[in-house]
Amino acid sequence: MFQFDEHPHRRYNPLTDSWVLVSPHRTKRPWQGQVEKTPADDRPAYDPTCYLCPTNTRSNGEKNPDYSDVFVFTNDFSALLSDTPEGTVSDGELFQAVSESGLCKVICFSPRHDLTIPEMETSDIRRVVDAWCLEYEELGSQPTINHVQIFENKGFVMGCSNPHPHGQIWAQASVPDEPAKKQQSQRRYFEKHGRTLLSDYLEKELVKKERILFEDEHFVALVPFWSVWPFETMIVPRRPMASILEMTPAERDGLADAYRKLTILYDNLFEVSFPYSAGIHQAPTDGAEHPEWHWHFVFLPPLLRSATVKKFMVGYEMLANPQRDITPEQSAKMLRNLPEVHYKAK
Amino acid sequence: MFQFDEHPHRRYNPLTDSWVLVSPHRTKRPWQGQVEKTPADDRPAYDPTCYLCPTNTRSNGEKNPDYSDVFVFTNDFSALLSDTPEGTVSDGELFQAVSESGLCKVICFSPRHDLTIPEMETSDIRRVVDAWCLEYEELGSQPTINHVQIFENKGFVMGCSNPHPHGQIWAQASVPDEPAKKQQSQRRYFEKHGRTLLSDYLEKELVKKERILFEDEHFVALVPFWSVWPFETMIVPRRPMASILEMTPAERDGLADAYRKLTILYDNLFEVSFPYSAGIHQAPTDGAEHPEWHWHFVFLPPLLRSATVKKFMVGYEMLANPQRDITPEQSAKMLRNLPEVHYKAK
Ligand SMILES: O=P(O)(O)O[C@H]1O[C@H](CO)[C@@H](O)[C@H](O)[C@H]1O
Ligand SMILES: O=P(O)(O)O[C@H]1O[C@H](CO)[C@@H](O)[C@H](O)[C@H]1O
Repeated sequence: MFQFDEHPHRRYNPLTDSWVLVSPHRTKRPWQGQVEKTPADDRPAYDPTCYLCPTNTRSNGEKNPDYSDVFVFTNDFSALLSDTPEGTVSDGELFQAVSESGLCKVICFSPRHDLTIPEMETSDIRRVVDAWCLEYEELGSQPTINHVQIFENKGFVMGCSNPHPHGQIWAQASVPDEPAKKQQSQRRYFEKHGRTLLSDYLEKELVKKERILFEDEHFVALVPFWSVWPFETMIVPRRPMASILEMTPAERDGLADAYRKLTILYDNLFEVSFPYSAGIHQAPTDGAEHPEWHWHFVFLPPLLRSATVKKFMVGYEMLANPQRDITPEQSAKMLRNLPEVHYKAK
Repeated sequence: MFQFDEHPHRRYNPLTDSWVLVSPHRTKRPWQGQVEKTPADDRPAYDPTCYLCPTNTRSNGEKNPDYSDVFVFTNDFSALLSDTPEGTVSDGELFQAVSESGLCKVICFSPRHDLTIPEMETSDIRRVVDAWCLEYEELGSQPTINHVQIFENKGFVMGCSNPHPHGQIWAQASVPDEPAKKQQSQRRYFEKHGRTLLSDYLEKELVKKERILFEDEHFVALVPFWSVWPFETMIVPRRPMASILEMTPAERDGLADAYRKLTILYDNLFEVSFPYSAGIHQAPTDGAEHPEWHWHFVFLPPLLRSATVKKFMVGYEMLANPQRDITPEQSAKMLRNLPEVHYKAK
């Protein structure tokens, strides 16, 4: 008989209308491939060579202020620029290009070079949440900005070039592919059911319980049924909200707390500063109402078996379909049972 | 005025109906992040510890034959299994899973542990092409196999765990997401124009010339207009063919030759054994006619600036949209101007 936790199967992601191949039996595979270095984890509170530390000079010659909590500035090497001239290249349906304007910002989470989110106080993480809200609001109110992507690349293995705790915000004129797909699916669902897709999903997950990591009155952290990365997770607000701007002050605190709790579980998993890319998917800032959107915070970590062995999304995954070995239920169980106190604080 | 090679823009991929963000100005960004090791490149012709070398014993206890050209066997750690019981898990539209049966094979390109495709003779690569055709035909004729994905992961950085020259074939009941998207786009195009999308695309590219790497009477190698990876390329047959089975013997030789030529350019770019994931997209083996399909061989290499600095598809790319710095035209120019002789053979 077909057993979910034993036999290869495909799972459907209703948010992005895509599939993942799950191969539960494959975790027994020995690993002889590339192992990552575990970066030394003994950074000073202030590093004179770090371009994100307070009072240091960045590569464009600007000097950082002596900031004491959160510091936001425009990326010195932005992928998007606000002064991009408008234009189109179009040679039939096979050659289409459109100029894109926008803005990239960097947000330092703390003046302390040696901290990361799971090592920060909830009250300090709350300031990060406030800065996100402010940026989403300010950037989003510009007529030429229709989408604001807030994200964090953590760890060298995720292409992060500086261990100083920071995130990024890329704001632009068009809605990128991933959020556009999620918008379409959520709209379809909302039109059919009059409820957000994630409200209904949460309701069911809270009964099933097998993929829940933790919950409080405002937020639920879980491993999605359709997750792709070995320890992929999601923080979802209980109430449907189109964007982070709709949060009450108590919910902002709740988000800061959930962000901290989740990243502590991550760090405790392999007792290492756990790498990931994380980001918030929420309504575009196109001026329209978006009752279909239920914002959520997704975490995509690359590690699979240990602090040094990652899951490679290559070959089959790039060309055909994402594939995972360990099941979402197994991952949830591993994460859920970890201590709530950071391993370094023990 | 909007300049393609200077200003940020989005390009449309008509094959997958998706977009890529191009940021040409961003190549000036300094890199302080992770650098890869360049694996030692002095392997013996035979390695007694390699589970792919002739006469050695694999982890399941089987002994490899003393093969002299190509050797194909079933993967000892297959992600897909042929004896998967059928079954479905479905709890409304938000929880859908379906069992998936299939088969994974490994194909050793050569008995020589120390070779790679660009260092092999065209006549030996031709045997690889023949093996692909045989496998596609045999696997595809099984009633439960509707898709056959042929691919190669090359290099440790691409998750390849053994440097012995080899590729993989994953055959399965359903059509994975990427080829399914390409099928949909190609069908739409074919129904509208009565020609394959890639025939029309090739015709235009051969006039424009700026993204062509090389061509002969059978094949064209180019950097697609919509490519995502810094040095992503594609080998496309001039004639529309739904699958590799339609190739004439001369075309099979031509494919072997193009595969060799392209990988020599790659190796010569940074004078290193160039990592990539590559694979063939072609018609599903579902028994139907597929006049819309024009098969092609895509190469997705991760390196960006040097043998040790790769492009990280993280944060923004995972959450929003693929993004590239160097333009496809710049990449094509760099690759096209490289010597045709392998740097080691100089
Ligand atoms: O089968 P291999 O080479 O051990 O494994 C490699 O290729 C597979 C198919 O692309 C991936 O699923 C694995 O993550 C990767 O490490
Ligand atoms: O801006 P950073 O941190 O230097 O760069 C990192 O994040 C970007 C956004 O996800 C990616 O485009 C880069 O490839 C990655 O190295």
